[in-house]
Amino acid sequence: MRHFRVTLAYDGTDFAGWQSQARGRTVQGELEAALSRLSGGGRVPVAAAGRTDAGVHALGQVVCFKLARELDPPELVRALNGLLPLDVRALEAAIVPEAFHARRSALAKAYRYELDTGPVQVPTRRRYAGHAPGVGHRDLVLAVPTLFLGRHDFASLASAGSSVKTTERTVLRAEVSWEGETLVFEVEADGFLRRMVRSMVGGLLAVGRGTHTVEELRQALLACDRRAWPTPAEARGLTLVSVRYGA
Amino acid sequence: MRHFRVTLAYDGTDFAGWQSQARGRTVQGELEAALSRLSGGGRVPVAAAGRTDAGVHALGQVVCFKLARELDPPELVRALNGLLPLDVRALEAAIVPEAFHARRSALAKAYRYELDTGPVQVPTRRRYAGHAPGVGHRDLVLAVPTLFLGRHDFASLASAGSSVKTTERTVLRAEVSWEGETLVFEVEADGFLRRMVRSMVGGLLAVGRGTHTVEELRQALLACDRRAWPTPAEARGLTLVSVRYGA
Repeated sequence: MRHFRVTLAYDGTDFAGWQSQARGRTVQGELEAALSRLSGGGRVPVAAAGRTDAGVHALGQVVCFKLARELDPPELVRALNGLLPLDVRALEAAIVPEAFHARRSALAKAYRYELDTGPVQVPTRRRYAGHAPGVGHRDLVLAVPTLFLGRHDFASLASAGSSVKTTERTVLRAEVSWEGETLVFEVEADGFLRRMVRSMVGGLLAVGRGTHTVEELRQALLACDRRAWPTPAEARGLTLVSVRYGA
Repeated sequence: MRHFRVTLAYDGTDFAGWQSQARGRTVQGELEAALSRLSGGGRVPVAAAGRTDAGVHALGQVVCFKLARELDPPELVRALNGLLPLDVRALEAAIVPEAFHARRSALAKAYRYELDTGPVQVPTRRRYAGHAPGVGHRDLVLAVPTLFLGRHDFASLASAGSSVKTTERTVLRAEVSWEGETLVFEVEADGFLRRMVRSMVGGLLAVGRGTHTVEELRQALLACDRRAWPTPAEARGLTLVSVRYGA
């Protein structure tokens, strides 16, 4: 058995998210179906670095699995791309040690969120950026990311019903920039709670629209209560950019 | 009757092009259906600056039409966006003199083509960029646009069966740049033959892949024979960016 790590990119628009479920097309489902065909039948269980939600995209999702077939990494990439639908692509593959696990071995994950704030969103942006007009306080938004930096209990930014051992995470990088009328938020952390990035963007938007001050957001974070935090932004603007592992 | 000029953006992926036809969903068809509802029934004929082909996008298509209803331009934009499908948006409107015509009054149109040249195209780029791996001569491609500049007979770059009075056009600007592995081609001309921009990109690609030299392309242009010119690039990478009118 060879243990493979594969980097995937996908357009999340037409998926019910990463994780296999009873209803709806999922990235995991498509990948496992392709791997099952490659290995001549039988399930090939796959683990992913980030279990992206419906509508969330990936440029550098990382997955791992064991395969009985003796393929070289470039052959595996070609074979997968021949079997996968066009909205999922394998970008690269490597043979990794037994101990490697796409999620547990990850040191950090980086996400990017794009939010168009003009009055009308151009249709070619609709799949890959959220839309929220009426952001009057563009400069104030730039001050929000510092709230997130470092180790915090992000319980206020978690979605309801998640069952995680701890809601503490360490944010290593958090930056906002404006590209014309588009707000771009980039964040890297040792891990993310479900909807955490979209909640962060909800916070940016609340300050940009003037419904919250930065100080009110700080209090909402400290409250460790998701009812204190503004609504998360739409899924479609979010992309899992990359996953970092040790050397 | 008010004579309106409206700027439109659309995602051409799910359209059979601009122009109404017996089969297939078209941008003109959607716009005329919305205008017909706005004016209480009856056809409202619309003219566009550029009759984009199936799969071609627009950020700044310009159209004109007469409307019996006394709407202000911002009201018209809102009303249209309430009636149009989400892959077509009205960006702005203005009341224009009787003599204005979206195509005939245009001084110049600008198109942009994006071509991904990496081995695998990331799915989030698939709708809005062509894909052609194996472009080894990245620097040579930069020399091609000068061939197009100025007034030329572009018969070699026209699609078969077009019936135009003259195949001469004046190219005002033509530039290639590389953004990572993506070739970006921007071109502005007083008018374009059908598939002319995609043929230009086909020429860039032929030089980039080494199947043609720049000198061979020059001869192919001078030949005024479409069989001499390389195959046009795919529609999906092409966007009508803007249309210029006199002051």
